[in-house]
Amino acid sequence: MFDNAEIAHEVDKATYKKKEPALRQSLLDAQYELLRQKRFPVLILIGGVEGAGKGETVNLLAEWMDPRHLITHAFTVPSDEELERPYMWRFWRQLPPKGKVGIFFGAWHTQPIVDRAMGQSSRSGLDARISEVKRFEKMLTDEGVLLVKLWFHLTRKQQKKRLEALESDKATRWRVGPNEWGLFKRYDKFSKVSEHFVRSTSTGWAPWYVVNGADPRYRALTVGTTLLAAMRDRLDEKKPSTPGGNPPPLLASVDGRNVLRALKLDRHVPEKEYEKKLEKLQGRLNLLSRHEDFKKLSVVAVFEGNDAAGKGGAVRRVFQAIDARFIGSVPVAAPTEEERAQPYLWRFWRHLPRKGRFLIFDRSWYGRVLVERVEGFAEEPAWMRAYQEINDFESDMVASGVVLAKFWLAISKDEQFKRFKEREKTPYKKFKITEEDWRNRKKWDDYERAVCDMVDRTSTDYAPWTLVEANSKYFARLKVLDTLCDAVERGLKRCR
Amino acid sequence: MFDNAEIAHEVDKATYKKKEPALRQSLLDAQYELLRQKRFPVLILIGGVEGAGKGETVNLLAEWMDPRHLITHAFTVPSDEELERPYMWRFWRQLPPKGKVGIFFGAWHTQPIVDRAMGQSSRSGLDARISEVKRFEKMLTDEGVLLVKLWFHLTRKQQKKRLEALESDKATRWRVGPNEWGLFKRYDKFSKVSEHFVRSTSTGWAPWYVVNGADPRYRALTVGTTLLAAMRDRLDEKKPSTPGGNPPPLLASVDGRNVLRALKLDRHVPEKEYEKKLEKLQGRLNLLSRHEDFKKLSVVAVFEGNDAAGKGGAVRRVFQAIDARFIGSVPVAAPTEEERAQPYLWRFWRHLPRKGRFLIFDRSWYGRVLVERVEGFAEEPAWMRAYQEINDFESDMVASGVVLAKFWLAISKDEQFKRFKEREKTPYKKFKITEEDWRNRKKWDDYERAVCDMVDRTSTDYAPWTLVEANSKYFARLKVLDTLCDAVERGLKRCR
Repeated sequence: MFDNAEIAHEVDKATYKKKEPALRQSLLDAQYELLRQKRFPVLILIGGVEGAGKGETVNLLAEWMDPRHLITHAFTVPSDEELERPYMWRFWRQLPPKGKVGIFFGAWHTQPIVDRAMGQSSRSGLDARISEVKRFEKMLTDEGVLLVKLWFHLTRKQQKKRLEALESDKATRWRVGPNEWGLFKRYDKFSKVSEHFVRSTSTGWAPWYVVNGADPRYRALTVGTTLLAAMRDRLDEKKPSTPGGNPPPLLASVDGRNVLRALKLDRHVPEKEYEKKLEKLQGRLNLLSRHEDFKKLSVVAVFEGNDAAGKGGAVRRVFQAIDARFIGSVPVAAPTEEERAQPYLWRFWRHLPRKGRFLIFDRSWYGRVLVERVEGFAEEPAWMRAYQEINDFESDMVASGVVLAKFWLAISKDEQFKRFKEREKTPYKKFKITEEDWRNRKKWDDYERAVCDMVDRTSTDYAPWTLVEANSKYFARLKVLDTLCDAVERGLKRCR
Repeated sequence: MFDNAEIAHEVDKATYKKKEPALRQSLLDAQYELLRQKRFPVLILIGGVEGAGKGETVNLLAEWMDPRHLITHAFTVPSDEELERPYMWRFWRQLPPKGKVGIFFGAWHTQPIVDRAMGQSSRSGLDARISEVKRFEKMLTDEGVLLVKLWFHLTRKQQKKRLEALESDKATRWRVGPNEWGLFKRYDKFSKVSEHFVRSTSTGWAPWYVVNGADPRYRALTVGTTLLAAMRDRLDEKKPSTPGGNPPPLLASVDGRNVLRALKLDRHVPEKEYEKKLEKLQGRLNLLSRHEDFKKLSVVAVFEGNDAAGKGGAVRRVFQAIDARFIGSVPVAAPTEEERAQPYLWRFWRHLPRKGRFLIFDRSWYGRVLVERVEGFAEEPAWMRAYQEINDFESDMVASGVVLAKFWLAISKDEQFKRFKEREKTPYKKFKITEEDWRNRKKWDDYERAVCDMVDRTSTDYAPWTLVEANSKYFARLKVLDTLCDAVERGLKRCR
């Protein structure tokens, strides 16, 4: 992987002086067209060895382009807010919006390489993280992000020479300390791990560009020309291509049987029994939330369901059980301008809770495979790949200690009709029923189909769906609380 | 202050059942009109003693209103990201946007009261924080936020009874522990401090509503009716009033002399000297940034100046001196939708850096008193009060350990003309010059006036302006670096 980058390159001053102004001008033009089109963001990852010109490249790009539309972020030690969330959270929160150029100085590649080179993770541990990175970058590029991954390489000899040169110059002496020489001592180990990582994550959708960093002029022209080509390619696209082409069809349904129709929706609980059990379950959930190990995990509960299935009522019973300081909810509405300028899942990632907290999503990321699919707001390739992206997202969450519970509240078509009518009659419930609800109802079968596919494809062992028979609100609420208690209990057991 | 709230109140069940549905309906109507008007946010502060129904009130409001447009946030222990920023940062980041209702469970009032009641701050310390709170709330209300501050009170006897009742009920026993009884033991102390705080921060623009919390039905109706009245009042306003009326005029200028004209803009440094000094200053700044105490502070540098005064070049020289991992910049552009839905300063607060970092603002919050004033984008009352709000903002920053440096880069009208022409000739500099720059130039005198007023009103001992003679780019860059070094040095001295 690094063979080519070991070859010596040198660009003389005259050549550089001749080529630089035009390159610079073209980059600037591209940057402005990017800003005008506002169709996608550019994200430049900077990786590689010490002394190979990573910092210089960042400064150079800031000098060549308009720094006002350039967002540079260097990832050093994560904060406690970051440590309490999935690994990828800190990168999500810094993603550049459409139209902007982002530079990540060290990114998701840094930690896996360092951990492995320092002997803090196994080879299979590294490979698991490589898979995670590949899936993440696939999602980013599918969402339209132009990823330009630059790896700056130096041979062992070149690095030694470079560190010595930095050290002997008064102005740059500070850049070389025991830390840098310590890393240099592990040159071979780092090189081996990096080579494996860079090769494995060099995919068709997001290749690494390995650049020899020894000659500043060669480095600058190579980076500039490569970046320009990547940007122009995307900017000049006539019709944005569909990543991966049209997806294959979903499993056909031939006998009308499915998980929803198999539910006994009329399961019932008498009021007296409900009240007794509700109190008991709320007490149980509350005790769990105050368990001493609870501060090591967080709970994310997703509520989806037919319109008028009683999501709000169920959510309120959960709220009642938890100290208001430790529970919050995210009502999922139309995305804001800042959210629309980001990959789909960004607006959910940004809300992920810290440890020791409950967070309720009233509707969720499943909107893409439900309403957006049925109403045609998302195109088929987008919602088809969403299943996998959602599974990855949820897997990241669970791996970081999130207890994830997902509820689909199901009612029958008749029960829905009854509830719609009731809402129209009750003044303070009227706001809950709109023309849209009646329109959605007409697409009952399409929604049913979408729900079955969703359950098929996103009910995983780490984040299973719970289908809740909800013709009786009492029954539904108890089942939700009971399931949630069980999930939290299992989460607490895992902490031990 | 609490006298009225000590009087016993009781609402019987029948009355409550009669009044509740209409109140609930009206609140919902108001909430929807708020959402439709999107003119202002509602922020409800919840304060008061344990057991007085704070949590219950939050849950009740979530039940009465549409929870999808309600944002509840409970402030407990601050995170490290919050601790590394000014005290108010954690509240800023949770402010509800226009059209939404936010509920703060414990807010900026909590810490000052607890600190004083527990003997961790002096009386004058408390009073300083009271002033800070008052100024902050004034700014919020001036910015259109409807603040509804609810204080839930119980007499000593009532609190004891309430805690005992909670303790004896299995379902609520968890809510009363040593912590709650410990607070109760300090009832008198807390009551005294709270009374002082609540009275002092009960202002014409943001009064506290003190509610006796003993009777849940009385409490619910009182809160609901008060909140409704406050919302209706604002929603039904025909023409939004100008807070404080039209401001008095600024100091007249009679002889044309001012701080800008007093500058010797042509101060010059020969190239050789420049290069030598530049290297020395960058080295000095770099050393400072790697000082062991530097992690205890952060640096915010604001760059304002005439168009083409060389801000970008000066900023780059600062960047070159600092390890790219510890410096960032915020280019101030048009506010986003999420930013427009917040008070003016929100979009600057959100970027404030953590400790150990440099942050450059390329243009800043001074936009309000410069371009927005001159171009009429902000009305006079808005930019007039901005001087004070900015001073408060900067005082918060400096108090939390931010080294704040503010630069105005000044060039002469002739020099600007020369630079504009030059930019038009150089292809890769062309993007820097637009029609707007030529238009702004025509308002040279207005801008000059605005700059002088700005310096007058916002050059404080804790955050002075540095006027930089910038006809010579070399001179300007050296002065910027030198001033910045001095400021960081002073900051480091304060840390010791």
